Amino acid sequence: MNKPLLYSYFRSSCSYRVRVALHYKNIDFEYRPIHLVKDGGEQLKDPYLKLNPKGEVPFFIDGDVGIGQSMAILLFLEDKYPQNPLVPKDPLKKAHCLQLCELINSGIQPIQNLKVLKYLVNELGQKDEIKAKWANHWITEGFIALENFMKDLSADYCIGSELSLADCFLVPQVYNANRFKVDMDRFPHINRVNENCLKLDCFQKADPANQPDAQN
Amino acid sequence: MNKPLLYSYFRSSCSYRVRVALHYKNIDFEYRPIHLVKDGGEQLKDPYLKLNPKGEVPFFIDGDVGIGQSMAILLFLEDKYPQNPLVPKDPLKKAHCLQLCELINSGIQPIQNLKVLKYLVNELGQKDEIKAKWANHWITEGFIALENFMKDLSADYCIGSELSLADCFLVPQVYNANRFKVDMDRFPHINRVNENCLKLDCFQKADPANQPDAQN
Repeated sequence: MNKPLLYSYFRSSCSYRVRVALHYKNIDFEYRPIHLVKDGGEQLKDPYLKLNPKGEVPFFIDGDVGIGQSMAILLFLEDKYPQNPLVPKDPLKKAHCLQLCELINSGIQPIQNLKVLKYLVNELGQKDEIKAKWANHWITEGFIALENFMKDLSADYCIGSELSLADCFLVPQVYNANRFKVDMDRFPHINRVNENCLKLDCFQKADPANQPDAQN
Repeated sequence: MNKPLLYSYFRSSCSYRVRVALHYKNIDFEYRPIHLVKDGGEQLKDPYLKLNPKGEVPFFIDGDVGIGQSMAILLFLEDKYPQNPLVPKDPLKKAHCLQLCELINSGIQPIQNLKVLKYLVNELGQKDEIKAKWANHWITEGFIALENFMKDLSADYCIGSELSLADCFLVPQVYNANRFKVDMDRFPHINRVNENCLKLDCFQKADPANQPDAQN
C-alpha cells in the first residue's frame, strides 16, 4: 500500500494545519513540496493544476481519495484514522471546536492569503505597506473575536484541556500573525494556547522551519 | 422546549446555506432578522455583538448550543437532526462533498463578503466599479475550479444524484454571482445543478426573496 501524499508548502498555513494532524495521529506520509512563489507559483501550472484545479495547497492523496481544502482533509483524516482524535465527542464541544476552526478557516485566512495580497499589489496598484496593513487588519479583527470566544472556551487548549482541530488552525494563524506584525499582546488566551501547543511534538514536526522545502 | 433560533439576513449567502438545511430537514425554527446594512449594521452593535463577537450572521441557538459559522452549524444540524441527511455516508463522496463546500466557504465567499468590499471602498478609497470587479474576479476564479471538479463529480446535484451540503453552499454562491454579474454561461455544470436545486421546496423556502426581512 502506498503512503499517503501531502502536497504542501512550508509556509502555507493551510498545509501546516494538516501537517499537525498527520503527525499527531502518527500517520506515515510522503511530503511533496509545491513552491507557491518561485516563477509565479508551481500551484498555478501543470502538472499540479491538473491535480488541483483550485491551484492551492494542501492537496492530499490517500488510496482512491484525492482532495483539497484543509478542513475537508482534516475531517477525512478523523474518519479514516480515529486514533488520537481531534474532534471532541461531546456535541457542544464539537460545535464550538468547528466554530473556532471556521472562524480562522473562512473568517481570517482567506482574506490575507497570498493570492489576495498579490491582487492588491498587481491589479489595484497598492503599495507593500498597504498590503501589510490589510493582512494585519483582517488577522487582528478575527483575533479580537477569537480571543473573546476563547475567554470562555479555552483552558490549556482552544477547547478546554484537550487538543482539538481548533488548535491545528490556531497555531498556523498565529504564525501568519507574527509574519504580519500583529500586536499579539492584546490576545492573552490565544498566546497561552499557542505556547502550550508549540511544546508538543506534533507542532514541532509540522513547523514551517522543519519542512524539507524550508527557506529563510 | 424552545424552538431553535436562526439569526439571519435575507441576502446573507452564509445564512441562506443554513436556511436550506433547516427546511430540508423540516426543522421548525424561529427566524430573527439582523440587518447587515442599516445604520452601519446591527451585527456590529450590542446586543447582537455580545451574542456573536465575530459580528456576522448566521448565528444559531438550539438548547445549550449557540454557534456561528455556517459550516459548524450545518455539521451540528447533521449530528442532531439526522433525518434527510446532507453528508454522504460513502467516505470518498463525503470527502468530495466537504471539499466543494470549503471551496466556496473558505475559497470564494470570504473574499467577496460585505465587510471586505466596504474596506476596499472606505479604507483603500476604491471606486464602486473596482469593488464590483473585485467580487466578480474572485467568484469567477473560484467557479472555474469548481466547474472543473463538478465536471467529474456532479450529476443532478453537486455530488452525483443526491442532494448534499455542497448544494447548500452552491446555490447561495450562484445568487451572489448573479448580483455581481458573473458571466455564468461559462459554467454549465454549476448552472445545471443550481437549476435542479431551485426546483426543490427547501431552496424556495430558503430563498432571500421569501424571508420575512426581504427588501427590494
